[in-house]
Amino acid sequence: MFRYFCFLLFSSIILYSQDNQNIESQIESFYNHSLTNGKSYEWLEHLSNQIGGRLSGSLNAERAVRWSKEELEHLGLDKVWLQPVMVPKWVRGNFEYASIESSTGNSIKVSICALGGSVATPNTGIRAEVLEVKSFEELKKFGIDKVAGKIVFFNRPMDPTKINTFSSYSGSVNQRTKGAEEAIKYGAVAVIVRSMNLSNDDFPHTGSMYYGSAKLRDRIPGAAISTNGANLLSSMLKLDPNLKFFIKQNCQNYPDVLSYNVIGEIKGSEFPDQIILVGGHLDSWDLGDGSHDDGAGVVQSMEVLNQFKSLGIKPKHTLRVVLFMNEENGLRGGKTYAKIAIKNSEDHLFALESDAGGFTPRGFSFDSSDSAFNKIKLWKQYFKPYLINEFYKGGGGADIGPLKSMGTVLAGLRPDSQRYFDYHHSSQDTFEAINKRELELGAATMSSLIYLVDIFGF
Amino acid sequence: MFRYFCFLLFSSIILYSQDNQNIESQIESFYNHSLTNGKSYEWLEHLSNQIGGRLSGSLNAERAVRWSKEELEHLGLDKVWLQPVMVPKWVRGNFEYASIESSTGNSIKVSICALGGSVATPNTGIRAEVLEVKSFEELKKFGIDKVAGKIVFFNRPMDPTKINTFSSYSGSVNQRTKGAEEAIKYGAVAVIVRSMNLSNDDFPHTGSMYYGSAKLRDRIPGAAISTNGANLLSSMLKLDPNLKFFIKQNCQNYPDVLSYNVIGEIKGSEFPDQIILVGGHLDSWDLGDGSHDDGAGVVQSMEVLNQFKSLGIKPKHTLRVVLFMNEENGLRGGKTYAKIAIKNSEDHLFALESDAGGFTPRGFSFDSSDSAFNKIKLWKQYFKPYLINEFYKGGGGADIGPLKSMGTVLAGLRPDSQRYFDYHHSSQDTFEAINKRELELGAATMSSLIYLVDIFGF
Repeated sequence: MFRYFCFLLFSSIILYSQDNQNIESQIESFYNHSLTNGKSYEWLEHLSNQIGGRLSGSLNAERAVRWSKEELEHLGLDKVWLQPVMVPKWVRGNFEYASIESSTGNSIKVSICALGGSVATPNTGIRAEVLEVKSFEELKKFGIDKVAGKIVFFNRPMDPTKINTFSSYSGSVNQRTKGAEEAIKYGAVAVIVRSMNLSNDDFPHTGSMYYGSAKLRDRIPGAAISTNGANLLSSMLKLDPNLKFFIKQNCQNYPDVLSYNVIGEIKGSEFPDQIILVGGHLDSWDLGDGSHDDGAGVVQSMEVLNQFKSLGIKPKHTLRVVLFMNEENGLRGGKTYAKIAIKNSEDHLFALESDAGGFTPRGFSFDSSDSAFNKIKLWKQYFKPYLINEFYKGGGGADIGPLKSMGTVLAGLRPDSQRYFDYHHSSQDTFEAINKRELELGAATMSSLIYLVDIFGF
Repeated sequence: MFRYFCFLLFSSIILYSQDNQNIESQIESFYNHSLTNGKSYEWLEHLSNQIGGRLSGSLNAERAVRWSKEELEHLGLDKVWLQPVMVPKWVRGNFEYASIESSTGNSIKVSICALGGSVATPNTGIRAEVLEVKSFEELKKFGIDKVAGKIVFFNRPMDPTKINTFSSYSGSVNQRTKGAEEAIKYGAVAVIVRSMNLSNDDFPHTGSMYYGSAKLRDRIPGAAISTNGANLLSSMLKLDPNLKFFIKQNCQNYPDVLSYNVIGEIKGSEFPDQIILVGGHLDSWDLGDGSHDDGAGVVQSMEVLNQFKSLGIKPKHTLRVVLFMNEENGLRGGKTYAKIAIKNSEDHLFALESDAGGFTPRGFSFDSSDSAFNKIKLWKQYFKPYLINEFYKGGGGADIGPLKSMGTVLAGLRPDSQRYFDYHHSSQDTFEAINKRELELGAATMSSLIYLVDIFGF
C-alpha cells in the first residue's frame, strides 16, 4: 500500500512536471513566434500608414473596419462578422486657431486643438479675458461674478511623481471631460484645457469632452492647449492679468451614423459555449494615426488568434477577438457588444483588453473576484523569463468593462507607461513611435495569458 | 522579566517599522526629486547637443572632460579632480563608401561605416569577391583556398528570440571584435560585418575591433554594414555569387594621447576611507551624440551625488562619482582607475555602473559573493512601488570590472533593453531618443540603491 502510494505520488509529480514543461515550452513558442514571425508590426504599419487616424463615423474608420475584417478572414478563423453599432460623428473641421493678445497689443499664436464633441466658436471667433484655475473647487470659489464672460483656463498639470502615468492622467483628466460643463454654470464663454501630457512640448492633445445636462444653446467651445502653450499663457497672465485670448474653431457634431465592431472567433473544442475574448479598439483620434491608441491593441489582439492558428493550438473554449468601435468618444462598441451578449445569454469566461500602448509589457491588471485572482497569481511563474512581473487588481479596459455585470473576469495588458502620454491623442501618436519588439512582446504576453485561461479556467 | 522582554521586543518592532518608514520615505524623496527637480535631462541635453559625440582622444572628449568637471564643481562636492589616462586615438576620416557591383555591371551603394580601430583601405579602395559566413567555424571550413583574396562578410544576425537584447548582442559581437583577426589567417582582404542591430534599417553600427597578434602590415580593413545592406548583399550573393564588393575608407590610428577620468566625491561621515562608487563612461562613439551610450549613465551618476547634496543626505561612506574615459575602444579609464586604487590601497565597498541606456529601469545585475547578494535581495521590497523587479547575478559594468580583484561588490543598472540596439553605436544614438522620465527614473533607482548600501553595508 505504501509502495503504491509512493508510486502514485511519484507519477503525479512526474506528470505535473511534464505538464509544467509543456506549458513553459508552449509559452516560449508564443514569444519565439511573435518575435520572428509575428504579423502585428506589419499589420500596424498598414493600419497606421495606409489607413491612418480613424475617428468614429469617418471614412477612415470604415476603411479600418473593412481591412481588419479581411485580415481576420485571411487567418482562416471559424467565423468572422461585423456587429452593427450606431456611433457619434464629430468632425474637427478645417480651422483651429488661437492667440494670446497682450494689453499692449502684441499677439502670440499658440498651439490648440478642439476637444472631441466640442461645439464650434462663432465664425468670428471668441475674444475674452482669461481666468486660470486648477480645479472645479477653485472655479466655484470665483463664482459667477469672476467667471462670467471669461475664458476659463484649466491648468492643473498631470502629477509627474506618480510612477504609473495612468494615475497622473486620472488625476487631471476631469478638467478635459467635465471642464466645460462646470464652466457653463458660471457663465464662461469657452474653456481652454492644459493638454494631458507629462512632457513640455508644442503638441495639443485632444480627447473627449461632455456637456452633461447643459442645453444645446448654452454649450461653449472647449479646446486643449499644448503644455508649452499653457506654461506661456500662465506666465503671461501673471504679468498681464487683463490679456485676452482669441480662439476660433469650426468643429461640428452630426447625427449618429452606422459603424461596426469587427469580430472573429475560433470555436472551442470542449467548451464552445464559453467565450474567451481578446480585444482593443479600432477607432482612434484624428490628430495622429492612432498607432499606440489603440492600433497596437488591435493588431496584438488579432495576433493572439493568428498565433493559435499558426502554432496549431486548438483552444478548448471559444477564442474570440473583438475590435471595438468608438471607445474614444462614446464607448458605443463596448456597450453594444455587452448588450447583445447579455441578450443572447452568451457565457463570457474571460476578457482581455490591450489599450495602454504598444510598449514593453510589464504585466496585467485584473478586475475579478479574489478567488479568481488568487488562481491567476499562480500563473505569474510562467511569465518570469519574459520579465512580466506586475499582476495586480485594477480595471480591465473601457471596452470590456460592460461585461463585468455578467461576472466575466476582466484583464488589461499593462505595458510600460512612461512614454504613453507623450503621444496619447496627439499628432505624435504615429507608427514611428512604435518599437517592433515591444509591440511583439505585448502580443506574446497576451497569447500566453489567454492560453493559461484556456487550459486552467477559473 | 517577561514584561521587560515584551517591552524590548515591542520597542524594537516599533523602531524597526519606524526605520523602515524612514527608508521608504527617503527612497520616495529620490524619485520625487528626480522626476520634478532632477538635473539629468538638462545635463544630457548639454552633453549631447552642445558637445556631441566624444570619441577618446577627440576634441569633443576633452570638452566633455572640462564641462563635467565644472558641473561637478557647481554641486559643491568635497573634492573634484581629473585622473590622467593615456588613451588610444583613432579617427574615422572623411571618406567611407561601399557598393555592390554585379557581374552584369550594375552598382548599388550600401551604407557602411569603419569599425573603430580599423586600418584604412588603399586610396583606390578594395574591390573583391565576397564570401558570406555565419561563424568562425564556417570560415575555418572554407579555409585558405576559398577565403584568400576575398572580402569576408560576417552575417550572423543577433538572435531576436532572446528577451534580454544584451544576450543577443553577446551572441553575435565576436564577428565585429575578432572577425578581422580570424579572416586575416586565411588571406582575406577585408571584412564586412552585419551591424549589431535587431532592427532592419539603413544605419551602420560601429564599435571596436581588434587585430590580436596580426602584424601591422597584415592588417585588413573592417567595416560594419547596415542590416538592410547586409540583407541585400546576402540575397544578391545567392543570385550572383561572383558579384564584387567595393569599399573605401580612410580612417587612421594615431599614437596614444592624454585624457582623463573625471572624479568627484562627498566624504563619508563615519567611514571616510570606505568608498561607494557610482559611474558611467564619458567617451562615446562618433556617429551619434552618445546619448544612450553612455551620456545617460554619466548624467545619472552625477545626479546621484546631486541628490545627496540637494536632499541634505550626508553619506556615512565616501560617495564617489567616476566618469570613465575610453570604455569604448580600450577601457583605459577603468583599468587606470583600478590600478591606482589598488596601488593606494583604497577600500572600495561597492561600485555601481549605468551603461545600458537611459530607458525605464527594470533592476540591477550584481557581481558579488552569495552572502552579499542574499543581503541585497532583502532590499528588493523597497523598489516595489517603482516597478523595479529584476535583481540577478551578472556583470556590473566594463569600467568597474577591474575593481573586482579588490573584492568590491559590483552592480549594473538594468534598464529595459528592447530599444537599446536600435541606437547603439550608430547615428541614431541621439538626444531625441531619450525619454526624460525614463532617464530620471533610472537616476532615482541608482540613488536608492546607493543609499541602501550606505546605511546597511554588506
